[in-house]
Amino acid sequence: MPIDRKDTRWNGWGWTRAHNPLEGREAVWAWVAAALGVSDLPQTPAKPLDEVSLPTTRLDPGARQTLAAQIGADAIRDDKVERASHARGKSYHDLLYLRAGNLSAAPDAVIYPRSTEDVMHVLKWAGDAGVAVVPFAGGSSVVGGVTAASGAQRAVVALDLTEMRKVIAIDPVSLIVTAEAGIYGRDLEAALNAKGFTLGHHPQSYEFSTLGGWVAARGAGQQSARYGKAEEWFAGGEVATPKGVWKLPAIPASAAGPDLRALVAGSEGAFGVITSVTARIHHVPRARDYTTFLFRDFASGVDAVRRVVQTDLPVAMLRLSDADESYFFQAFGKAGQAPKFRDRVQDAFLKAMNVGDRPCALIVGVEGDQATTSFAGVRARALFKLAGGVAVGASPARRWYAGRFHGPYSRDPLMDRGLGVDTLETATSWSSIMQLWSAVREALDKAMRDNAREPGAHGIVLGHVSHTYHDGASLYFTYIYPRDLKREVAQWQAIKTAASDAIAASGGTISHHHGIGEDHLPWLAAEKGAIGMDVLAAVKRELDPKGILNPGKLIANG
Amino acid sequence: MPIDRKDTRWNGWGWTRAHNPLEGREAVWAWVAAALGVSDLPQTPAKPLDEVSLPTTRLDPGARQTLAAQIGADAIRDDKVERASHARGKSYHDLLYLRAGNLSAAPDAVIYPRSTEDVMHVLKWAGDAGVAVVPFAGGSSVVGGVTAASGAQRAVVALDLTEMRKVIAIDPVSLIVTAEAGIYGRDLEAALNAKGFTLGHHPQSYEFSTLGGWVAARGAGQQSARYGKAEEWFAGGEVATPKGVWKLPAIPASAAGPDLRALVAGSEGAFGVITSVTARIHHVPRARDYTTFLFRDFASGVDAVRRVVQTDLPVAMLRLSDADESYFFQAFGKAGQAPKFRDRVQDAFLKAMNVGDRPCALIVGVEGDQATTSFAGVRARALFKLAGGVAVGASPARRWYAGRFHGPYSRDPLMDRGLGVDTLETATSWSSIMQLWSAVREALDKAMRDNAREPGAHGIVLGHVSHTYHDGASLYFTYIYPRDLKREVAQWQAIKTAASDAIAASGGTISHHHGIGEDHLPWLAAEKGAIGMDVLAAVKRELDPKGILNPGKLIANG
Repeated sequence: MPIDRKDTRWNGWGWTRAHNPLEGREAVWAWVAAALGVSDLPQTPAKPLDEVSLPTTRLDPGARQTLAAQIGADAIRDDKVERASHARGKSYHDLLYLRAGNLSAAPDAVIYPRSTEDVMHVLKWAGDAGVAVVPFAGGSSVVGGVTAASGAQRAVVALDLTEMRKVIAIDPVSLIVTAEAGIYGRDLEAALNAKGFTLGHHPQSYEFSTLGGWVAARGAGQQSARYGKAEEWFAGGEVATPKGVWKLPAIPASAAGPDLRALVAGSEGAFGVITSVTARIHHVPRARDYTTFLFRDFASGVDAVRRVVQTDLPVAMLRLSDADESYFFQAFGKAGQAPKFRDRVQDAFLKAMNVGDRPCALIVGVEGDQATTSFAGVRARALFKLAGGVAVGASPARRWYAGRFHGPYSRDPLMDRGLGVDTLETATSWSSIMQLWSAVREALDKAMRDNAREPGAHGIVLGHVSHTYHDGASLYFTYIYPRDLKREVAQWQAIKTAASDAIAASGGTISHHHGIGEDHLPWLAAEKGAIGMDVLAAVKRELDPKGILNPGKLIANG
Repeated sequence: MPIDRKDTRWNGWGWTRAHNPLEGREAVWAWVAAALGVSDLPQTPAKPLDEVSLPTTRLDPGARQTLAAQIGADAIRDDKVERASHARGKSYHDLLYLRAGNLSAAPDAVIYPRSTEDVMHVLKWAGDAGVAVVPFAGGSSVVGGVTAASGAQRAVVALDLTEMRKVIAIDPVSLIVTAEAGIYGRDLEAALNAKGFTLGHHPQSYEFSTLGGWVAARGAGQQSARYGKAEEWFAGGEVATPKGVWKLPAIPASAAGPDLRALVAGSEGAFGVITSVTARIHHVPRARDYTTFLFRDFASGVDAVRRVVQTDLPVAMLRLSDADESYFFQAFGKAGQAPKFRDRVQDAFLKAMNVGDRPCALIVGVEGDQATTSFAGVRARALFKLAGGVAVGASPARRWYAGRFHGPYSRDPLMDRGLGVDTLETATSWSSIMQLWSAVREALDKAMRDNAREPGAHGIVLGHVSHTYHDGASLYFTYIYPRDLKREVAQWQAIKTAASDAIAASGGTISHHHGIGEDHLPWLAAEKGAIGMDVLAAVKRELDPKGILNPGKLIANG
């Protein structure tokens, strides 16, 4: 079964029934307020759906009937929960609108196709009727990638692919799976695990994001060093475009002209609707080895990570938090608790090991067959030790692993207490990474002060490296600040702009794995260049000449 | 210094001064004739250049002068050696024309730009003057990728990039190099080696092919499992297009929309002229371990290779010859020599090891730092032994390694004796590879018989796997047959068509690393689909609206 939209929060993260991880932890709130330079954290609950009204549908009843005749009346839904759940994605920016009860972006209807053929009917119908189509599946975009914008069209429908969730074929010899694009990560993984395989793609959104969405946004799982980013495991598939169905054969490598799969990965629904995906899979790893090191500062940790990556040692994950992030998660977890004996021993140990009092934590993950995992684990430990890392054992890494999908659940309770909390990410070459890290931190810090709720208020910036490459790495930032309730959106926009400008000025990519959507579009041209943007526009014109697909995402005039 | 065209064969492979590897080996000829079912191998020498005449240049003297004023008169050359050397690439098909003295495809002039600016001047000038521009550097294409076709234009110039050969920057931290695109492989490698680095890209054409050419054709070096295919190490660069200079930033990974680098890799000069390339490099490996295994048949060898690749063991190369190739190279080398004591011992050993009398040879190559190479070498040996491989030591692998660029030098002497000799390659998933191998072998065998010079004559087909991936591998075929001197081109075309049809019918890619050029164009649409071809055409129109760039390659109406 796909997820029923009633079971997830239309205006927040995850399961409606999920427990609030900060419930009753008053000490945490006091600690957070102090850390942000404010004396109070107001109660700012979100508006419930029954107090919110939806815009009248602009969908012509005749047009609705025409479509119903083609794909079935039950494939068209326009009740309140459906329209509210498909208005926007899950970015902080989105939640500012949704929590305020602003559903001006609600689609006029939600369509649930059951086949590529259904999708083609919808595209043909939409082109004829002047209706924009926003491909939507998990809806977990954090960059405004699924806002139901009508663009130059008369109305807009969200095209929800989650009924297209079949695993079509597993090739156990070639290690590839073909599945319909709307399958959720956990369902695909369960089907693969049952046969001894794994895709190994575990983004934080894993439970609520889909195979097709991962490809459309060039997502990355936490163990991307082993399993590859979406564009790396994306071997082929089918894309429904207004011009017809585009089939991309699954070939391991080719010199048959440009690789058009690279145009589909990252297309964000602007060129077509990905309806099936062939992906490279692995045997379920026989062994997993996760452990933790501490470094005295971020620069020495980054340097150590780089050196290990560049030996081409087969690791699954190297995740290095900067000092503030390492400290914050520890302090946040322990706020209001008396120090335990274990903590005091740990502090004494770290002091003796000379890593300072604000060390940076590195989680090292190795997965695979027994022999390679064993070799890589031993070798990684030796190299990190040699580079000045202090081994602190498997426990912190295991705690991280156990909670690796829980992070986003903290955002709603933080937003309920007048806080702003957003993340952004980039990637650059190793020689630029420290400069980029500093520039983004400074830009965020300054913008949070300049846009503070009140004098003296400020924000917290937490950073980490989490995806590593031969030539560089990603940087991920979380920033938390007291929300200015009088100008929440403008405040966020100013902070986001400052950070994005810093990224562009430092030569980082505007997104490593979140995508472009609406939020990053102003910075895309600086990265792609005028000619690159012209090429994207030419492809868009060719495939979607009427401009019905996902208006305003990826391509400005789309 | 770039290579002076006088020092290389305008109508054959490599250095003019190179020694003929088959000189005086009459026993080889007798053996070859017997193997091909013919009684004689006629002398069929190529026509020397001084007996060949060139078509009159169609370049308007006024236009020539205009260009000379912009980029310097010495950048324009039209002597006989230059025009003959830039008429075509180095495919067997090309050589049929060149050896016959047919220079109808000679360019009207050869232009040697010294900068991206020069290239932009040439493109602007060519657009105004109605002159086609064929980007050319090493000129080692074996798929008709550099034939100096004028297309719909009035004249054609070859744009020889080999004066653009500077190493611009090496980033020792990020392990990336930026160099001008016209630098030859060996010059780039020498510059990198001097600083302790390597690109590790060693195709058979290594000495005579260039950095930009590798990217334009999506080439592969022999150790691609470690260093990556061109599109994998291609991190960014500059492309001069008729619309302007397109800069592609070097970013390790990104979700900022589709990766446009994938449109440049494989663009074959049809979208623009690659003028500089940023590539991912490695430290020169501290250790190299090459060894040899034998398998009793190709299927069991392929299965063993697949299993090892899918453990994600870091190997540099796995090259598995089929039985005919394993036998041929051994027999070819030994033809006319009395069996040595060592050979008899070896035969007895193999018999005892139960690999049959026509085993398949696998070369296993591991490179990298000491620890990983040591682990991977030991582990690979254990896995291949477990899979039924018989270890026969390092010697055959070392012999292959020492002669890894020499193969093409045998073609000219074979062609001098009335033989046809060509290669083709493809890639597919592991589950399809044996079927594809059989289909291509059968198609080649039948076509060589159907198009035989005389009744009873036939060909030899040699095959190997040489580039391996998680989900599949490449297949490379060499085929040799008695040339039908009355219809050399038609004979080749019939054989090539049969093999290409078999590849397309079996779901293989029409090229794994040679490219499309003119020769594979008829099969491209089957692979890319009508929509894919429309997308390529849209990009072409956007970047090269007048259609001056490399007419007839990659895109039919280009």
